[in-house]
Amino acid sequence: MTPTAGKTATLFTDTPLALDGGAVLSPVTVGYETYGTLNDAGNNAVLICHALTGDQYVASTHPITGKPGWWERLVGPGKLIDTDKYFVVCSNVLGSCLGTTGPWQDNPETGKPWGTSFPVITIRDMVRVQAGLVAHLGIDKLMMVIGGSMGGMQVQEWLTTYPERLHSAVMLATAPRHTAQNIAFHEVGRQAIMADPDWCDGRYYDHDVKPAKGLSVARMTAHITYLSEDALTAKFGRNLQNREEVTFGFEADFQVESYLRHQGSSFVDRFDANSYLYITRAMDYLDIAARHGGRLADAFKPAAHVRCCVISFTSDWLYPTVENKSIVHALNAAGVPVSFAEIESPFGHDAFLLDVPEMDHMLTGFVKAAARTNGLFFDDQETGDA
Amino acid sequence: MTPTAGKTATLFTDTPLALDGGAVLSPVTVGYETYGTLNDAGNNAVLICHALTGDQYVASTHPITGKPGWWERLVGPGKLIDTDKYFVVCSNVLGSCLGTTGPWQDNPETGKPWGTSFPVITIRDMVRVQAGLVAHLGIDKLMMVIGGSMGGMQVQEWLTTYPERLHSAVMLATAPRHTAQNIAFHEVGRQAIMADPDWCDGRYYDHDVKPAKGLSVARMTAHITYLSEDALTAKFGRNLQNREEVTFGFEADFQVESYLRHQGSSFVDRFDANSYLYITRAMDYLDIAARHGGRLADAFKPAAHVRCCVISFTSDWLYPTVENKSIVHALNAAGVPVSFAEIESPFGHDAFLLDVPEMDHMLTGFVKAAARTNGLFFDDQETGDA
Repeated sequence: MTPTAGKTATLFTDTPLALDGGAVLSPVTVGYETYGTLNDAGNNAVLICHALTGDQYVASTHPITGKPGWWERLVGPGKLIDTDKYFVVCSNVLGSCLGTTGPWQDNPETGKPWGTSFPVITIRDMVRVQAGLVAHLGIDKLMMVIGGSMGGMQVQEWLTTYPERLHSAVMLATAPRHTAQNIAFHEVGRQAIMADPDWCDGRYYDHDVKPAKGLSVARMTAHITYLSEDALTAKFGRNLQNREEVTFGFEADFQVESYLRHQGSSFVDRFDANSYLYITRAMDYLDIAARHGGRLADAFKPAAHVRCCVISFTSDWLYPTVENKSIVHALNAAGVPVSFAEIESPFGHDAFLLDVPEMDHMLTGFVKAAARTNGLFFDDQETGDA
Repeated sequence: MTPTAGKTATLFTDTPLALDGGAVLSPVTVGYETYGTLNDAGNNAVLICHALTGDQYVASTHPITGKPGWWERLVGPGKLIDTDKYFVVCSNVLGSCLGTTGPWQDNPETGKPWGTSFPVITIRDMVRVQAGLVAHLGIDKLMMVIGGSMGGMQVQEWLTTYPERLHSAVMLATAPRHTAQNIAFHEVGRQAIMADPDWCDGRYYDHDVKPAKGLSVARMTAHITYLSEDALTAKFGRNLQNREEVTFGFEADFQVESYLRHQGSSFVDRFDANSYLYITRAMDYLDIAARHGGRLADAFKPAAHVRCCVISFTSDWLYPTVENKSIVHALNAAGVPVSFAEIESPFGHDAFLLDVPEMDHMLTGFVKAAARTNGLFFDDQETGDA
């Protein structure tokens, strides 16, 4: 896999990273990007947590695909998360493949890629690495931690693991744990990868191949769960791909087939198959409540001072409103102040990545209020909005 | 693939079967089962149409798995579809792999298995073969044709293609055409099969292998769509498989993973991968309305004399109530008498195969009324029920 073209930090050199699974890692490399400048008061830092196949290029060009940052719509100079005002940090999660330590990297003890000898990690392990990076960057307390989907899972782990380092937290389109159906879809993806003979029991790096077909099928399956049925119908319906009639063959007759195939094959160029295995596993394992006697509220009690915001989307069937609401209920029960909205959107789970004005409206107010209550004052806030 | 252990008929020997795709097949072998006896009046015949991976063993032991028939709960002596009263016919669909002509069979011109040189077929092609079998069995008119899921698609093609041969028709948990999401899930399954190197471009029969891993992944994906999220949660939740804690590995830690893997691997023993490609394609292609200027009602107009029944299930997200209702609306608009019920069930799409008392109640009444109005009188109907 191509390492990051951006910044990297080497952490956990003296004190190894102790993982939930019992293994230790030392050192840990972290690929990350920053935007803007940390102010002298150190109270303008925003950590953005990315989703399963996301990366640190939240507001800058992806080094492999050449595409704009995945949240460039919201993050940048003068934008909703204004990099003229805030110091924005986004790091590639532990286990991923854009510069941060993961199965693609050489095991320092053997000098060969870890492959599946890499220890299985958790969302909390990812957050431990982020906390290490945040400290490395001289940030004592984050004005905000924000993320959607798996990013929102990381935010929950921040709330329970490092609440003293947070002023506010935003979770979008997420869940406190995976349902059986969530696990089932991930398991199909993992089986598709492991079924590919080019996976080579995880040691494909040694053979100069990669399980492209298996990873592509995994991505296609997952991609269906990111969109709503209505969105697929509106976008493609039964439209045919560059033809008048069906071909009575197995080519991509329908546009939706062609679209999915493209989603699969382009994913392979930018993502490592083993990273996909490890990160999906971490998501399946997440169950913060289980660590607290089954009561999620108990996990959030130390975060009573953190201003929270939870946003769900009506057409998200991957992490539907009921899952997001269970986080809200737990925050309420823990005495954590929380704003919640279920936003009407046809886009399915991916809504948090797309142009949804009501989401922007809610986030705009929340971000400004978080800044002000964290001691930041800007001209456009002096009217006392939000 | 193992051919059927049951009855077979050889049809279309003199007049070849002309397929929707333009190709012709001659002869066509049909694997089928019958239960009960055709009466002298010939008015007690019931044709049961099976779903995607179903077969003719509706009420008798499957020759490969040794399991009971797939609708043995409803079909048999004294049962809802009473084989003491009715002559029940169920045949393996065209393209499938339990005795009926399909890609697994030798092409008579080459003496080698068709593989992907087998012509792509449609649901209507399947029904044409069924109509040939029904005639071969001496049945002029069916008292009833009934099927769920893809079986219900065949029933719709019966209604528009051979209405004069029908007295009544029952469709359960079905749709008049595939949505983009339906096509997307099927395409993932096909790509999983075709990604398996043991698929050998469809010629695996020649190499004494089969694409077991790819077919297994296809089945796992599809299986998720057959169950509801609630059903998966109720059945498995996040329960672990024979262990107290997660293993921090890629074994089947969760019961739902173990269950899915079993669904995948056991499917491979009883089903042919190419048959899966051809039948999913036929389902994706179904669009009866498109053959009638986009008006499904026009397709059903010649069936105004056929008593119809449509049943959907609340938790079916594969073919939800809205899809079933569109059939009902078209039947209504065509002046076809139709009973419809959306039945409360937590089981998802598979509800039509399971123990759902309200479904049984509705079918019991409908079957008896269909028999009586077709000139059949039995002791238990003389009270004038249904």
